[in-house]
Amino acid sequence: MPELRQNLATKEWVIIATERAKRPQAYVESGRYIVTPNQVNYDPTCPFCVGNEERDLEIARWPVTGDWQVRTVHNKYPALLGHEALLRRFDGVRRQISGVGYHEIVVEHPHHNTALALMSTVEIEAVLEMFYNRGWSIRDDPRIKQIIYFKNHGENAGASLHHPHSQIIGLPIVPNYIRQHGEEAQRFFDDTGECVFCVTLDAELDEEERLVAVSEHFVAFVLYAAPSPFYMWIMPRQHTVSFPYTHAEERADLAKILRGVLRKLYFGLHNPAYNLIIRSAPAYELGNDYLHWHATIIPRLSQPAGFELGSGMYINPTLPEECAAFLREIKIDEAD
Amino acid sequence: MPELRQNLATKEWVIIATERAKRPQAYVESGRYIVTPNQVNYDPTCPFCVGNEERDLEIARWPVTGDWQVRTVHNKYPALLGHEALLRRFDGVRRQISGVGYHEIVVEHPHHNTALALMSTVEIEAVLEMFYNRGWSIRDDPRIKQIIYFKNHGENAGASLHHPHSQIIGLPIVPNYIRQHGEEAQRFFDDTGECVFCVTLDAELDEEERLVAVSEHFVAFVLYAAPSPFYMWIMPRQHTVSFPYTHAEERADLAKILRGVLRKLYFGLHNPAYNLIIRSAPAYELGNDYLHWHATIIPRLSQPAGFELGSGMYINPTLPEECAAFLREIKIDEAD
Repeated sequence: MPELRQNLATKEWVIIATERAKRPQAYVESGRYIVTPNQVNYDPTCPFCVGNEERDLEIARWPVTGDWQVRTVHNKYPALLGHEALLRRFDGVRRQISGVGYHEIVVEHPHHNTALALMSTVEIEAVLEMFYNRGWSIRDDPRIKQIIYFKNHGENAGASLHHPHSQIIGLPIVPNYIRQHGEEAQRFFDDTGECVFCVTLDAELDEEERLVAVSEHFVAFVLYAAPSPFYMWIMPRQHTVSFPYTHAEERADLAKILRGVLRKLYFGLHNPAYNLIIRSAPAYELGNDYLHWHATIIPRLSQPAGFELGSGMYINPTLPEECAAFLREIKIDEAD
Repeated sequence: MPELRQNLATKEWVIIATERAKRPQAYVESGRYIVTPNQVNYDPTCPFCVGNEERDLEIARWPVTGDWQVRTVHNKYPALLGHEALLRRFDGVRRQISGVGYHEIVVEHPHHNTALALMSTVEIEAVLEMFYNRGWSIRDDPRIKQIIYFKNHGENAGASLHHPHSQIIGLPIVPNYIRQHGEEAQRFFDDTGECVFCVTLDAELDEEERLVAVSEHFVAFVLYAAPSPFYMWIMPRQHTVSFPYTHAEERADLAKILRGVLRKLYFGLHNPAYNLIIRSAPAYELGNDYLHWHATIIPRLSQPAGFELGSGMYINPTLPEECAAFLREIKIDEAD
């Protein structure tokens, strides 16, 4: 019997379509490893490779001197521009704001043929430190109301360049979708005096069956109301409104659990395309009590179709509990 | 300079990313026609082809006697089931409803190798009449709160079977996304005494630059705040809350304009994948004043990535006005 499940935090419903029942094993596609020992870590046509850097696009690099490990550059074809004035023009049905904002690329590693899952914990930590530093810098701009950190891994996830990289977009508005989730969390706090994400986290730790990995500061689990197979949240145990309020020790721990989860996907599901998203609270938080940042990992194993686009609702053919059990059982090498 | 545009009706923002400027012509992919005169209109492995019908799955056919032109069948792997009781189980963070509802397939034509764009107006009208009749029938079930009629054309749009078909899903809940759009329309009506869709339609007819086609009863236009290239609404001129409240004359006219628009896509953009969606109001409408049904056509020419999944917001690299002008200029044969 299929069932509808609701995410307590977002109030989004999904259909868990057990009549179509696809077991987690069905998503393992063999032979899709993109990295082999013989591949050269340099591509002469890649703008992110060492030696091809366009210096005038550079925003930050780490380490500052010597060979870089992580770089942030302006997107060459930015969706938003930082240097313009914020102008609103509301004229009848036309409502327009000038495209002010930030659109940055974080080049995660000097090597062309690698992936976040194959990097060391220290290398992943350097990427997160870059997010942290760029996040604080963008927050200083009073025009910016929302920051999205995200990664598209693989073509099905929207990646157009192979060299491992993430993106940061700073928006001059809070998107409806995010505002609505914030309102739901606020209503929950009004009704109960509790953070709905803390309540969710406690329940997941208690029930155990959807857990994928736990660390000192974080918990990774498949959502009870997962919109698609293996859809996960990595949530800090400590109630923290926004990613830039994390401590260095927490970010080091996040690098560790993130690496573990991505390695389970890489080796267990043979390197599927995925999106990684950190949706940090609006720059000027009113939500200290009820917002709780988290990372979202969405393996892209199915294609949203007319139903999803028309209803905003998803059909998931695979039980979240089975996906979590599958990932738990994948043994990975924890060593760097 | 990029800009943010807001859809007045839904309050959704999109980024029109002019720095990436892709002209409408860039989406023409040649050689993707799926229909050639020599193709056989029967596939022995296709469950929708004449001769392969599974009679126990059939719900309706037209004409009732003789050879069928349009059939509705139960989805063999339904996301929802009609014969179960609606049970709610709310237990802490677990919120669950039994998967009660409808999931039907409308086989649009007896021929395997055709497409809606290649059918005659009368044939398309027969498909719409089937939607209408099934819509009334599903509305009779008091457990159903929302009906979505949709079509996935092509693999990129989520179609898994080639034989032309649409789907109807009847849900036991109103999805958040749809409820939120309804609330925005209600607020607009409260503030102004007008239907926001009627206001939008008047503005589009007045400004003309985003129009694609007009007929006696309908107007097809690219949205001012189109989330993706060529994203269109086909809207009835007559304020009508729900698709099943249309008149037969209107549905005949809808078949005509829909055919024209789909032929522009088929011949002008060389048969791209697309979704067609009719999101009809909840079964028991409270929204007679402020809801106004319409069809949505979404050519699937780009892949939603981490930014879209994280923010619910879209980046459209092509100006809506240029997309509309491109489609207006495609001359199609109107004859059946």
